[in-house]
Amino acid sequence: MPDSTSPPDFVPTPRTRVRRLHERGRYDRDTVFAILDAALMCHVGYVIDGLPYVTPTLFWREGEHLYWHGSSASRMLRKQSEGIPVCLTVSHVDGLVLARSGFHHSLNYRAVMAFGTAAVVADGAAKTAGLNRFVERLYPGRNRQIRPISPQELKATTLMSMVIDEVSAKVRTGGPVDDEDDYALDCWAGVIPIETRIGAAIPDERLKPGVPALDGLAHLPEGGVLPEILHALARGEGE
Amino acid sequence: MPDSTSPPDFVPTPRTRVRRLHERGRYDRDTVFAILDAALMCHVGYVIDGLPYVTPTLFWREGEHLYWHGSSASRMLRKQSEGIPVCLTVSHVDGLVLARSGFHHSLNYRAVMAFGTAAVVADGAAKTAGLNRFVERLYPGRNRQIRPISPQELKATTLMSMVIDEVSAKVRTGGPVDDEDDYALDCWAGVIPIETRIGAAIPDERLKPGVPALDGLAHLPEGGVLPEILHALARGEGE
Repeated sequence: MPDSTSPPDFVPTPRTRVRRLHERGRYDRDTVFAILDAALMCHVGYVIDGLPYVTPTLFWREGEHLYWHGSSASRMLRKQSEGIPVCLTVSHVDGLVLARSGFHHSLNYRAVMAFGTAAVVADGAAKTAGLNRFVERLYPGRNRQIRPISPQELKATTLMSMVIDEVSAKVRTGGPVDDEDDYALDCWAGVIPIETRIGAAIPDERLKPGVPALDGLAHLPEGGVLPEILHALARGEGE
Repeated sequence: MPDSTSPPDFVPTPRTRVRRLHERGRYDRDTVFAILDAALMCHVGYVIDGLPYVTPTLFWREGEHLYWHGSSASRMLRKQSEGIPVCLTVSHVDGLVLARSGFHHSLNYRAVMAFGTAAVVADGAAKTAGLNRFVERLYPGRNRQIRPISPQELKATTLMSMVIDEVSAKVRTGGPVDDEDDYALDCWAGVIPIETRIGAAIPDERLKPGVPALDGLAHLPEGGVLPEILHALARGEGE
């Protein structure tokens, strides 16, 4: 029985209903949020003079709000500040799927397409708090170590948000699914996983002597799987 | 002196000129092609009824043509088949840049935005050859091991292409650049690299006995760096 206190899942709309391979479509809140929360970057699509633009940018989620930021001088953000419709897409590549015919080769992936209207976070206090939460979301405790944002920097930064109006997720997992006759072929088949991992940290050349290595950043160890780390951080498990 | 036999670099246009942090903008053919060739996935943006859509999809480059494919039943491809303008964006996340103020935190990345008009590859022979080249581009020699595409599968697949009309790349590399006073802070700063690597292969449960492990796939070894492998394959170095 569904928990009556949890918010309802998203409803497929004509725009978000996954039609092709519809068994890959997902609309439940946990799946959608987990895919968003495991990502660092999104691709924001918007329209200027009838033409499409897709800009990769950092983003984060708070409830049903998605946030991204950038320079107040950016053409993208100046345009989005007008309150235009956006499609914010997130994708994770999880593995190459090798089948016994070209047609059945595939990719394991998780993706979300979220539709909404871009809005500027204009209020100075809300903007400062939002930007600080973004630092904290990736690097818990780091705001206590770094210099706070200055009025000039705040002015030079635009914080955008959107409420998720419509959304769908699409997920493929598992091995190849071949035509029955093809299983007889002398051909390797299976999945070659693809992983996004943390590499060996490179300290700044001007690092102050005595500062402990990766101070406060133990949640980003070499070899760590980034999407898992980001997802844990979003659930407050990385601090 | 430029080699007079090599094609000219791309020319920045009002749509592609990188304005914000313009020192990060790149328009030379080598940089643009290297970023495209190192990627497996792109995000294709298009407009339906004035609204933006961004779909993640596999793609590949041949000269100044970009190709992507999918089901003939796909809403995205049916729409794109009408010859609509698209923005095909590729991004690589290379590292988290940790600075001594929130404002100077950044991301090392490589991205390309390519603009053009989507076109269907309608000719059956050209379509078959294109799809076979895509298999070969990722898995050299594999077409000799797998079953060829059937007429039904060919019909069920749509192959799209676009010529790159306008394009720009944007690249950030290196460590944090802090305000002079902030270097005195007791704060770790530097770069935490992010890497996309090959994981341990998972053989299909119905793998035919006697088939050598990862037969013909030695270019995708566990631990291999995927963007480097893809780039080498595109230059014909992975075979």
